[in-house]
Amino acid sequence: MAGSDLLPRLVTLLLFSLLMMTSPATAQNGTSRAAENDFNRRRTLSLGIIIFPGFDPLDVFGPLELFYQSSGSYKITLSLISNVTGPVSSGPPPHKMRTPMASMATPGNSDEPRMMVLSHVLRPSIVATHAYTDAPALDVLLVPGGVGTRAMGKANGGVTWVEEFINERFERLDYLLSVCTGSLLLARSGVLDGKRATTNKGAWFEVVGEVGEEKVKWVPTARWVVDGKIWTSSGVAAGMDMVYAFLSHLYGEKDPVITKAMNGIEYSPHTDPHWDPYSVVHKVPGANANVSLADVVKPVGYD
Amino acid sequence: MAGSDLLPRLVTLLLFSLLMMTSPATAQNGTSRAAENDFNRRRTLSLGIIIFPGFDPLDVFGPLELFYQSSGSYKITLSLISNVTGPVSSGPPPHKMRTPMASMATPGNSDEPRMMVLSHVLRPSIVATHAYTDAPALDVLLVPGGVGTRAMGKANGGVTWVEEFINERFERLDYLLSVCTGSLLLARSGVLDGKRATTNKGAWFEVVGEVGEEKVKWVPTARWVVDGKIWTSSGVAAGMDMVYAFLSHLYGEKDPVITKAMNGIEYSPHTDPHWDPYSVVHKVPGANANVSLADVVKPVGYD
Repeated sequence: MAGSDLLPRLVTLLLFSLLMMTSPATAQNGTSRAAENDFNRRRTLSLGIIIFPGFDPLDVFGPLELFYQSSGSYKITLSLISNVTGPVSSGPPPHKMRTPMASMATPGNSDEPRMMVLSHVLRPSIVATHAYTDAPALDVLLVPGGVGTRAMGKANGGVTWVEEFINERFERLDYLLSVCTGSLLLARSGVLDGKRATTNKGAWFEVVGEVGEEKVKWVPTARWVVDGKIWTSSGVAAGMDMVYAFLSHLYGEKDPVITKAMNGIEYSPHTDPHWDPYSVVHKVPGANANVSLADVVKPVGYD
Repeated sequence: MAGSDLLPRLVTLLLFSLLMMTSPATAQNGTSRAAENDFNRRRTLSLGIIIFPGFDPLDVFGPLELFYQSSGSYKITLSLISNVTGPVSSGPPPHKMRTPMASMATPGNSDEPRMMVLSHVLRPSIVATHAYTDAPALDVLLVPGGVGTRAMGKANGGVTWVEEFINERFERLDYLLSVCTGSLLLARSGVLDGKRATTNKGAWFEVVGEVGEEKVKWVPTARWVVDGKIWTSSGVAAGMDMVYAFLSHLYGEKDPVITKAMNGIEYSPHTDPHWDPYSVVHKVPGANANVSLADVVKPVGYD
């Protein structure tokens, strides 16, 4: 009968409509990437970067350089977001931590965190354009790491405006990116629960020790990890490699604008997310020490 | 006779004393490097970085990250120097240039510079700590490049406070470093006269075209070039490789602090100053296209 024929067709139509209503960013399957790339090339991408005292300078400016160059052709807006507008120092606030700065001597064999006085470290400041209370709608939010993440962990049980802001905005973001120990802030906010992620390998024990191995599926050997709309990179310089991969995902593999940007800044990226010699260097449990630590890099577009 | 014996010995003593009075930075020979390294590890290094509107963000923050990490152990001070203190935007001012931003389409076949409107480009600001009129004594001065260098070339016949400051301070500096088109500012100031230097390969024709091939010995294929106390790097990301080599020169090859810093930020540097695929990519005259464009990189300390 006509009635019994109609129902399955209506259900199919409804399911199809629901599928079409899915946020563009969640469409990860290959067949729709060309349409996604087209969408991204047409839209103005709203990029937000979180800034807090003791952020690592290159965690911000490595990825930002790639967006900066891309913004010559693609429409991108930038919001540098902190608790208030104005200068924010990258100088580390005094804090207790197990892992000192990369260049500091390790604090003996003690497992006890000790107060690190790092006021002698260089402290360039960048200007936050928005307080988190006034930040605009965002498509992409990037969260840097740095020694400041440890000081934040001591404040209010580890929940600061950063974690609250990440949590508040997460659902409406197309992508959430973290560099280095920025993944610690993502984990504290809860958005990494049950997800695959990575972090700075020199801070591995500290980050995984605090968050736990049950809550987040930490990947020991990874230059960067993608899980749904969350992209997390290994330490500092890995952020540039992740963001090159991210921009290729956004605008298309071998996109001429991104290729030109990469060759303009003369950066030959690591393109294999599984290349991670620093998991060996920093003795991360589960890292495979039998692989070559070297990588062959070359200008983008020269295969 | 005693008198005729004494004179040569006095002359020798005088020459020896003069040699000892030579600035430490000018001692480039191998035999004194250990003493130089020791001197540098003991002194507080006064680092200045010039900032102007339209500076390239990574030209500053690539090298600065290495100094930032090193400052955890070695004593370093940082002066971010501009015409006045306060925020300085990396956003390009409107200007005429032949070479657009890396990611922009090339402006046809015309050799005529045309006005580039780049006000849509991202413009993160950093905070200048010193006006050039109030900058302290400096040991190392780093000059970034960026699209702003072209706008400066149109002002007052290319002589701005930057060139005057470089010139005024040059004699008393131990080292003068430039990244990317920062070498254009060095050339305009006159300190590169007769020296070997390099620049961003994507801006080669513009830079060499303006300065001339007689005034400066431009090196077409070089990640970076050292001539006396002047270090000049190729484009943007090359600054990090140059500064790793510079820090190794300053503090010693395989210095544990620098090694730890590099592995902490997970950056595997290019260590061969002759590796320069971008001279091929950007078709620089004299570049050898028959060599491999690839480079093998690995963590510092893992040979």
